[in-house]
Parts: sequence; structure tokens; C-alpha cells
Amino acid sequence: MWYQQELSLAPRSRGFHLITEEVTSALRELREVTVGLLHLQLLHTSASLTLNENADPDVRHDLDAFLRERIPGDLPYFRHTLEGPDDMPAHVCASLLGTQLTLAVRDGKLALGTWQGVWLGEHRERGGARRLIATLQGE
Amino acid sequence: MWYQQELSLAPRSRGFHLITEEVTSALRELREVTVGLLHLQLLHTSASLTLNENADPDVRHDLDAFLRERIPGDLPYFRHTLEGPDDMPAHVCASLLGTQLTLAVRDGKLALGTWQGVWLGEHRERGGARRLIATLQGE
Amino acid sequence: MWYQQELSLAPRSRGFHLITEEVTSALRELREVTVGLLHLQLLHTSASLTLNENADPDVRHDLDAFLRERIPGDLPYFRHTLEGPDDMPAHVCASLLGTQLTLAVRDGKLALGTWQGVWLGEHRERGGARRLIATLQGE
Repeated sequence: MWYQQELSLAPRSRGFHLITEEVTSALRELREVTVGLLHLQLLHTSASLTLNENADPDVRHDLDAFLRERIPGDLPYFRHTLEGPDDMPAHVCASLLGTQLTLAVRDGKLALGTWQGVWLGEHRERGGARRLIATLQGE
Repeated sequence: MWYQQELSLAPRSRGFHLITEEVTSALRELREVTVGLLHLQLLHTSASLTLNENADPDVRHDLDAFLRERIPGDLPYFRHTLEGPDDMPAHVCASLLGTQLTLAVRDGKLALGTWQGVWLGEHRERGGARRLIATLQGE
Repeated sequence: MWYQQELSLAPRSRGFHLITEEVTSALRELREVTVGLLHLQLLHTSASLTLNENADPDVRHDLDAFLRERIPGDLPYFRHTLEGPDDMPAHVCASLLGTQLTLAVRDGKLALGTWQGVWLGEHRERGGARRLIATLQGE
């Protein structure tokens, strides 16, 4: 069984956001899959998807603070600067964290660990709504 | 053909460890797949999975030393510090390296390059046994 | 439907290179897939695959410049130095960026965003031709 759907994620501020619920509630077909995989791919190059802790929001704050400090926008060798000082760091984050994620599905749900959640990394100041292609397969 | 199994990896010290053999020997069904994919997903947010060199253990040492130096636990803006100075760096490593991996399967084996192996990144001082979901599909 | 093919990518200089066209033109079977996934896996540990911007080549320059500055080859704790000062940084980049990528397929083409392209990260000075396994599945 194959199922593919394009989702639009609500606009978010710069930083990391837990989107597990937003993604899974949009994919009703997930409930029909006993064993399978869900592939998520952002259609952007300045945001990211990653699996990390679903509980303490400080973890999301700290990863964002770390990336902002370590990947500033004003590095002297950066040439791609016309779109603002948050743009090139956003491209770096997209490649370091990744823009696609494959997740195990079991008994109609994502087979996540107790503390795992899907994070959207919004790396622009005004990234707007973000589009994502969800591809579900399984039996 | 779909097959899914939860594995428990033996506890390891902080650093990188080659787990190709431990994972593949637990998955007897791999031998039945002529063309396919194996998806591995850790159920944790302070460890990682990555493909890297299977020969010289110095490569594993060096990546760990690099991450320890560049991602210290005492950064002034870290708020998630209650679980110890190795915890927030472990979350950073989990997102930078990733906690899931999809691997090509060919003729009943992982289709790895000559020098490729699957690494577990244990980023906690005492991470304990790590659980992983293996999802195998193919024909 | 499953299809697997080994590709050889032309040798490239150190840095990032757009390979979307080279990969997809070699995979004629892509056109037959209405919904599916394409999995790409490099068979090397000193190069990487990532999704990022397909337009301005400065983005590729800047990510490479950032990684060269932040991951130098002469760190005092590096032990794996016999293969030259570009080798250990290349292993670090392979794990930070990843060597495998899963991409959504829709209507016989990669379902990429307007600005997305597949990048090969060549992290060695003389990496030579790079081999890759492409695994295509779908219906």
C-alpha cells in the first residue's frame, strides 16, 4: 500500500517546534498500516526535520541557541548574503540536520521512543508556511 | 515482504561503536531479500546512528573527540542542564548525526561499500542498553 | 516494483556539486513510478549526499567554506592523520551531512521543491569517481 500527500505546516517563529501531532493527525491512512514506513520531506532548503526530545522545551531552545551561536550570518567568507543574515545559516542547518526523515510505523502509529518527537527546525526569521511531502507505505 | 523487529543493543561507553555485525546477525530475514532496504531507528534522543569507516578505530575516536570539544556541556545559554553536563550535548549530537538510517540491501546482505560500517554513537556517559526498531522490506 | 542500480559519479573537485540531473538521467525507471521513493547511498566514507539549494552556486561555496574553517585537519587530538589533512575532516563531514538520502517520487519524477537539488559533497582533495547505489521502489 502506497499513499502520498502534501501537507502545509502552519508558519512558525525561528527555532524548533514539535510537529508530531500536526503531521500524524493529517495522515488518517496511518491507522491502516500494521508494519511500514513514513517518509517526510520538506520542500524547502532553509528549514529542517529531526527526531529529538518531545518533553522539555528547553532542549529545543538549547539546540537553536547552539546553532545560532555557532553558525552566525556574518562570516567573512559567506557570499550568499543578499537574502539577509539568517539565510545562509539556514542553508547550513538544513544540510547539517537534514530535510527528510524516515520513520518506522507499527500498529497504525509512528513507532517512536517514549521521549521522541518530530521537530521542525525553522531557520528563517520569517519562513512562512512550510510544505512537506508525506509518503506512507506498508501493509 | 515486510519484516519488523525491535533489537536491544548491548550497553556501551561514551563514543562511537561499530554495530554492523550485531545488527545484521540479529536479522536472519535479511538473507531472504534480493533487493530491498533496511531502516534502523533508535528509540532514544541522546544516541545516534551513522555510516562511517569500519577499519581504523582512530576514526571513531577522532569524531568523538571533535564532538566533545565543539559541543561542551557548560555553554552559558544551555537551560536543559539538570540531567548532567553530558545530556544536552547528547541531544545536539542526536540531531546533527541523526537517529535513523536507511540502508540498501542486495543479495541477502547490506550493500555497504568496502570501508563502510554502521556506527552507534553513544553520547551519554551511562546510556545503558539502547533499543532500535529494524524495518526490512524488499523482495 | 523494486529496481536497484549502481551508479558511478564523475570525479569532482573538493566542495559541493549539484548531481540531480546526473542521477535522474541514469535512472530511466524513475519515469514508470507514480508514487514511490528513491534511496541513494554513497559507498564511501569521505563524501556526502544532501538536499539543498539548486540555484545560486554561492550557497555551495559557503557551506564548503564553513566546513573547511570549522573542521580543520590539524586538530591536536586527531589520530587518523596518515591519509592526509583532508581525510579526517572528510569523515566528519560524511557523518554530519550523511551519505544516504531518501527522496519522494511523484508522477515519474523526484518530488523536489522548486529550489531543491541533490548535492554531492566531495570532501577529499582527490576523491576520484564516487560510487552510489540507487534503490527505487513504488508503483
